Amino acid sequence: MSGDWYYEENAGTTRFGIRVTEKLHEERSEFQKLAVYETAFFGRVLTLDDVVMLTERDEFVYHEMLVHVPLCSMPEPRRVLIVGGGDCGALREALKHPNLERVVQCDIDERVTRVSEKLFPWVGKTLTDPRAELVFSDGIDYVKRHATSFDLVVVDSTDPVGPAAGLFGRDFYAAAMRALRPGGVMTAQTESPHWQADLVATIYAEMRACFRHADAYACWLPTYPSGCWTLAYASSDRRHDEYFDEHRALEIERHCRYYNRALQRGAFALPTFARDVVYRGVDPFERFATAQRRLLAESDGPKE
Amino acid sequence: MSGDWYYEENAGTTRFGIRVTEKLHEERSEFQKLAVYETAFFGRVLTLDDVVMLTERDEFVYHEMLVHVPLCSMPEPRRVLIVGGGDCGALREALKHPNLERVVQCDIDERVTRVSEKLFPWVGKTLTDPRAELVFSDGIDYVKRHATSFDLVVVDSTDPVGPAAGLFGRDFYAAAMRALRPGGVMTAQTESPHWQADLVATIYAEMRACFRHADAYACWLPTYPSGCWTLAYASSDRRHDEYFDEHRALEIERHCRYYNRALQRGAFALPTFARDVVYRGVDPFERFATAQRRLLAESDGPKE
Repeated sequence: MSGDWYYEENAGTTRFGIRVTEKLHEERSEFQKLAVYETAFFGRVLTLDDVVMLTERDEFVYHEMLVHVPLCSMPEPRRVLIVGGGDCGALREALKHPNLERVVQCDIDERVTRVSEKLFPWVGKTLTDPRAELVFSDGIDYVKRHATSFDLVVVDSTDPVGPAAGLFGRDFYAAAMRALRPGGVMTAQTESPHWQADLVATIYAEMRACFRHADAYACWLPTYPSGCWTLAYASSDRRHDEYFDEHRALEIERHCRYYNRALQRGAFALPTFARDVVYRGVDPFERFATAQRRLLAESDGPKE
Repeated sequence: MSGDWYYEENAGTTRFGIRVTEKLHEERSEFQKLAVYETAFFGRVLTLDDVVMLTERDEFVYHEMLVHVPLCSMPEPRRVLIVGGGDCGALREALKHPNLERVVQCDIDERVTRVSEKLFPWVGKTLTDPRAELVFSDGIDYVKRHATSFDLVVVDSTDPVGPAAGLFGRDFYAAAMRALRPGGVMTAQTESPHWQADLVATIYAEMRACFRHADAYACWLPTYPSGCWTLAYASSDRRHDEYFDEHRALEIERHCRYYNRALQRGAFALPTFARDVVYRGVDPFERFATAQRRLLAESDGPKE
């Protein structure tokens, strides 16, 4: 925060500023710093450890795509686990599927849900749905304790630093794979191939060590760094394009603002540079990364 | 510029900052302010009237998609006109098509090309290609004077303020339509449906008043506001999906970093909110736009 602007900085080389009208909440939970800001352009904005997690303006993008793409690719999904997602946005989307019997949300930090319940309009309704079960504990432990239990595991995590670091490693992916029932799928947020190419390459290599298939699909998310985000579709039993429940997808898209049937396939059409990152582990921006490292090494941090 | 950061502000509510290592050039031409900055993360950055036009890191996205999508949708394109595009990025992409006989680039401001020639590596080679013709004059006049002359008109313009304002109106679109040969197509950059929904809606309504078909396709462009950009595919004779030269597209994609055959269709799979903007003229973010207008009315500008 500088004056009435919230600033998020990436690796000392870019900054994204949002004009804030009021700070509605701030606390340090056992796990992280939580804050909620009121803004005109984005509505309310939730940050964790000073990184934007969601804004009312564009959270629908990410939550719809994490959930509906995998569920519409399965004939009979019944049980879903959301790891992270304490803001209940992914939960809200999953509950749109009438065929689901149980949606478990397991977030390590109960404070995220309690603060969201007060400040974001969609949360209350999700908490009273009898199919929803909220668990507040370590997602890695929970996944390990629930073998062959879910048709879909959604990893709705923060970035791979702090409390979520373990959710991006091979150990967790192996456990998530074992938590799936036959034909099950894991989806996960997997960062920006434009600005974090080396990180994205590592994530998919780790995932592919555990799942037979690990594909990436894209969404446009303006308030995450670069605005270009990948989501993973990982499975050992199923490819993303081998089944599509067109009828259910049509019902779902009527209640969505981003997801639609054309995107079920279209979102997997990645630009070549992103395919290079995801499938070949190449960093197409290596020369810029080198220049950036040199710059950061020369200075302690950006001067104002 | 504040210290060694370049800042771009949108409507008083968001800011995008790029860390700058050196200002390489600055001048006021007859038409606009030109500047080029050296940066680590984005390479060199060209700004016009303090708005980022291109960065070395991600200009390929926009230039490839503006040119290859329409050219690969036509059986025998021979003549291309680029309106604007003084940085020669779209020209570079068009010249990758061996079947083209002539590519005219008509930019009102010769200084953009002269400065780009010195500071961007791709320009020189485009200027010596015998098929390239550079014209420095008003694009609207040029288009009006060249009826039935081009298979493709690419509108590679700045935002609809300042010198490019006339390139977004019905009068220009009607002239561009008349400049096309039978089966011809106009493509254009048409701003962000996330952050400028009302503007995008207006642009497509104007376009549809002149062309029988005006569809939008998407690209991921991190250094334009929101990172989510639309391009228009407009024609009175041709739909974007009625012909596809798969063989030529394969040749082209080998020399591209963004464009590939899957995107020829996939980029037209728009999220629902963007379809609402482009095809129904709806602003899905109306409540945020209202809050933003109220905020701006209450203050003279953001405080630091």
